[in-house]
Amino acid sequence: MSFTIRTSACYLPEQTISAEVLDQRLRLTPGTCRQRYGVDYRHYAASHETALYMGAMAGKKALRQAGMALEELDLLVCASGTSHQALPYNAAGILNELGAETPVASMDVNASCLSFLTALEMCHCALQCGRYQRVMIISSEVAKVGVADTKAETATLFADGAAAFILEASSSAGGLTSSLFQTFPEGYNLCQIRSGGSGLHPARYDMEAVASGCFFEMQGKALYKLVSKLAPEFIKQGLSKAGLTMADIEYIVPHQASYAGLAHLTQRLGFAKDKVINIFATMGNQIAASIPIALHNLLVHQQPPAGKNVLLFGSAAGLSLGLGVLQL
Amino acid sequence: MSFTIRTSACYLPEQTISAEVLDQRLRLTPGTCRQRYGVDYRHYAASHETALYMGAMAGKKALRQAGMALEELDLLVCASGTSHQALPYNAAGILNELGAETPVASMDVNASCLSFLTALEMCHCALQCGRYQRVMIISSEVAKVGVADTKAETATLFADGAAAFILEASSSAGGLTSSLFQTFPEGYNLCQIRSGGSGLHPARYDMEAVASGCFFEMQGKALYKLVSKLAPEFIKQGLSKAGLTMADIEYIVPHQASYAGLAHLTQRLGFAKDKVINIFATMGNQIAASIPIALHNLLVHQQPPAGKNVLLFGSAAGLSLGLGVLQL
Repeated sequence: MSFTIRTSACYLPEQTISAEVLDQRLRLTPGTCRQRYGVDYRHYAASHETALYMGAMAGKKALRQAGMALEELDLLVCASGTSHQALPYNAAGILNELGAETPVASMDVNASCLSFLTALEMCHCALQCGRYQRVMIISSEVAKVGVADTKAETATLFADGAAAFILEASSSAGGLTSSLFQTFPEGYNLCQIRSGGSGLHPARYDMEAVASGCFFEMQGKALYKLVSKLAPEFIKQGLSKAGLTMADIEYIVPHQASYAGLAHLTQRLGFAKDKVINIFATMGNQIAASIPIALHNLLVHQQPPAGKNVLLFGSAAGLSLGLGVLQL
Repeated sequence: MSFTIRTSACYLPEQTISAEVLDQRLRLTPGTCRQRYGVDYRHYAASHETALYMGAMAGKKALRQAGMALEELDLLVCASGTSHQALPYNAAGILNELGAETPVASMDVNASCLSFLTALEMCHCALQCGRYQRVMIISSEVAKVGVADTKAETATLFADGAAAFILEASSSAGGLTSSLFQTFPEGYNLCQIRSGGSGLHPARYDMEAVASGCFFEMQGKALYKLVSKLAPEFIKQGLSKAGLTMADIEYIVPHQASYAGLAHLTQRLGFAKDKVINIFATMGNQIAASIPIALHNLLVHQQPPAGKNVLLFGSAAGLSLGLGVLQL
């Protein structure tokens, strides 16, 4: 008893900014965004395209595709690394956007960029033990708004978007057959947005400090170094736990962490390039929406047959590493 | 196969403010906080007592009581309605505070005031399906910092604190035998902190608007009215789903939503007063930490025998209602 993916859908902001326009905006030598940062274009949410709006749009599309009413869901799990507001949680806001007329159970799961994979893990358990039958997971991120244009490295990295997956309990399917999650506190400070919570709060700190803490801060080199050090052993351990080798994996869906990170993963770990879903040029790093949008792309464009193993893998602010084997 | 509670622990801020001092601070007629708002005293976190610090202190205590090392946990779930900062999630920050030397799997669950109960639900599934053996849930809230002193109704309501529960898979225990969760979007706007996320962000809005949005806003009367309308039918439905009547319930652990709310629940639903854990006078509303701190109080002071049913119930910003039957 586990789950099948009934359907999946995405919502991408209407506005796209090309690498060339981005070069101009960031005052970079023409060609830099494309060549150095691997950008083709980036989707940036307009002000009406909030995380709640985008999540609801993806959710509506998924429900329409499945021919299901919102009320037929047992549970809505929102799995994002950032929230729309501090309180209430995103899932309640998305239900509000969806105009739910009958109450639906809802919750958020947050493990920064690994939120979707973590939600998939928890939903696997919830569906496997028979407590739930139909669950929708939505990841929705307005990532770019909190990223200043001052550092090209991060300004070219992030983009916005949302994905929705409807999972259904199934006695024949494998679901997320195995998983491994690890958080390494030594990397806690390498990637953060310090404001937004009870810590750096305007009741205690001056607004200038609070305002500057609302923007994304990343120590890119140190982060890259740490992930590169930890990832090979982690993936080895994860596959061994699953009782698999790379030969058993049909596709790899990695978090779209960075241009260099994806290239490194593909090369260093000996992943065949055509096995790795790389949508970084057009999608960038959409925080927790990256893995489900990449998985959606795989399912729609490659249509892998049932029974095949897809390896989901990513790093996340925390610093956390996560891996899951999804048996389609 | 389900779980037992191996141990539980709390951390409360050292500083307490009495009802009398609170009367003075809020410029109320002497006696108002005690008589009208049901306050004996309130624990308020000092600036070093962050949500991460308090959560780590509760976690350390629970691990010490259990004679366990942090590394023996399969998973740390942080279940709070507010976060310390926007990114990364609380669990990563608490692992950092705990000085974890070996990596531990971690995630946050957020369903505002129902976060602990929701985490208990997901952990029940994770432990039941055999994927995890030992899980710690921590709820930690610095609630008061985001509550302005301008409205006595909310200023007297909230207080700070943290709780940690260690759950262990067990083939003989019942765990959270039944549950019901429902979110009613009609109540979405009644209780919120509008800033802190990608919505009301300083990149798009002026800092004055962002700063004012960092404070808690509640339409108390409308909220009370809506919960009072929905709760009786919800509890009836939850008990019916569990195949139980109130006669099967040994104790009730409600969210400490408000003085009036707790009184109403006890009276209107015919709960015997001595069955209901009411710690509002000394603890106030600690958002997601309320239910676990009340449950911890029940376990320590009443020591209910194994096999007894405890009804956990609460309302949460969302608006959500949640109910769980915990078989000890």
